[in-house]
Amino acid sequence: MASSKSLSSSIVINHATVRERADMPTFLHLCADRGLKSASIWSNEIDKVGEAVALTALRDTGIIVSGFNRIGPFVPEYIDRADVELERAARFGADHVFLFTGGLLTRGDSDLSSARRRAEDQIARLLEMAKTVGVKLAIEPLHPMLVGDRTVVGTLSHANDLCDALGPGIGIVVDVYHVWWDERLESEILRAGKAGRLLGFHVNDWLIPTKHLLTDRGMMGDGVIDLAAIHRMMRRAGFDGPVEVEIFSTDWWARDPAEVLDIAISRCNEIFGASNEGKHSQP
Amino acid sequence: MASSKSLSSSIVINHATVRERADMPTFLHLCADRGLKSASIWSNEIDKVGEAVALTALRDTGIIVSGFNRIGPFVPEYIDRADVELERAARFGADHVFLFTGGLLTRGDSDLSSARRRAEDQIARLLEMAKTVGVKLAIEPLHPMLVGDRTVVGTLSHANDLCDALGPGIGIVVDVYHVWWDERLESEILRAGKAGRLLGFHVNDWLIPTKHLLTDRGMMGDGVIDLAAIHRMMRRAGFDGPVEVEIFSTDWWARDPAEVLDIAISRCNEIFGASNEGKHSQP
Repeated sequence: MASSKSLSSSIVINHATVRERADMPTFLHLCADRGLKSASIWSNEIDKVGEAVALTALRDTGIIVSGFNRIGPFVPEYIDRADVELERAARFGADHVFLFTGGLLTRGDSDLSSARRRAEDQIARLLEMAKTVGVKLAIEPLHPMLVGDRTVVGTLSHANDLCDALGPGIGIVVDVYHVWWDERLESEILRAGKAGRLLGFHVNDWLIPTKHLLTDRGMMGDGVIDLAAIHRMMRRAGFDGPVEVEIFSTDWWARDPAEVLDIAISRCNEIFGASNEGKHSQP
Repeated sequence: MASSKSLSSSIVINHATVRERADMPTFLHLCADRGLKSASIWSNEIDKVGEAVALTALRDTGIIVSGFNRIGPFVPEYIDRADVELERAARFGADHVFLFTGGLLTRGDSDLSSARRRAEDQIARLLEMAKTVGVKLAIEPLHPMLVGDRTVVGTLSHANDLCDALGPGIGIVVDVYHVWWDERLESEILRAGKAGRLLGFHVNDWLIPTKHLLTDRGMMGDGVIDLAAIHRMMRRAGFDGPVEVEIFSTDWWARDPAEVLDIAISRCNEIFGASNEGKHSQP
């Protein structure tokens, strides 16, 4: 694994990628064993092992937290404990906290425009809370096919508009799966970069055929997304953060988590290594 | 069915909705029996019964052709006979002919930008041919989830940009299934309307959950799309053409075609009747 050392420090694995067969401490140790420095985590996975165990695993491995999942969906059950989640994110030292709005159906709206206005108002309230706690919020536009039941923010341009309206304290995570098809992809990434709001870059791949709208994402290189090109757009837009692997896939969930991480790191080195080289080849 | 007579003359059924159990003559007679005046047809369905039989069925029923499917995907096998298809569309008196670009994978492209440029060049060539033959071309942006394997035009804004570049002779068909999620939906419909390029309005519904990316479209009213609101946008944009029902669905394909048409017409009357009333309540 020596040849991948230089890049692997700038790779983040999102726990969701292996969550079915690795609890949070197991996951963090798998990351640390591979030289990874940070990871993205889920609050419901902390609940499963208890916060003390989760914090100990972080301390033992030296892993720092990149993304913290998540606030939402925006229904009372989750919104009522948003302050608790934001404080937990701060305790775990997270770089940013994901908002998950839920979709049109989540609150029983029939009209997408008003569902969007309500979600935007909710985000404004959450931003005030996040500022008090001292954590950054992240919007991740999800694929338009998820606007019915998972999100009301389906494009980078909508996310940029929202951030323009809300001001500092909130930024954008670009997940290739959700945005690769957009003819405005490059201009909207540049727009986010100019505004200094690019918080993360998630990678995976779009499979042909895609068998399920939620759980059939591909490993980088197995699908049709031009990942290296989108990575270059991110770099040109000034993003110098890590590449984060987040794959929701029943196929990959069924495999050995150690093997999944090895393959993911290897693919990241193949695909993103070259464009990352200048930055990370020095110790 | 008397109460629906006033609207049903402005309803078009696309043959794809019942193609699995009704050949083209059967389909046209089902439409005529219900007082429908026009229908959208498929060239491969003409092939199945032969052009003479198809033309006779049109003449016998008095049905006129709205949309003609289709030119594409853009690979030599289909492009080489584009002139033949355009001439057939003219012979069948079609109002417009659909372009089906195919997706990123269709011609083995790895780069979406260049796949788009190549498709746009191809559309420009087809437009010259269509003008010679005297038929209008229609672009129908398809859902972003189909950009991998079915289209390179995944938004109304991209379709509008394309039409701006190409000039007269080509317009846009708005299918709710593909565009309902777009935060720019209303402004892009208005933009198309102002340019006088709205050629059609296709209806169906987005089901939750959606079980298949191609063949799980819903009957109007069974999903989450605010159909009446989008219809009002079309009317405000100056579109006064028919509502066209096009449903790709293994569930609906399995049902009796006559029943499918009755339900579709009834749903159209319920959902679009009110906003259509002023226009169609007079003989």
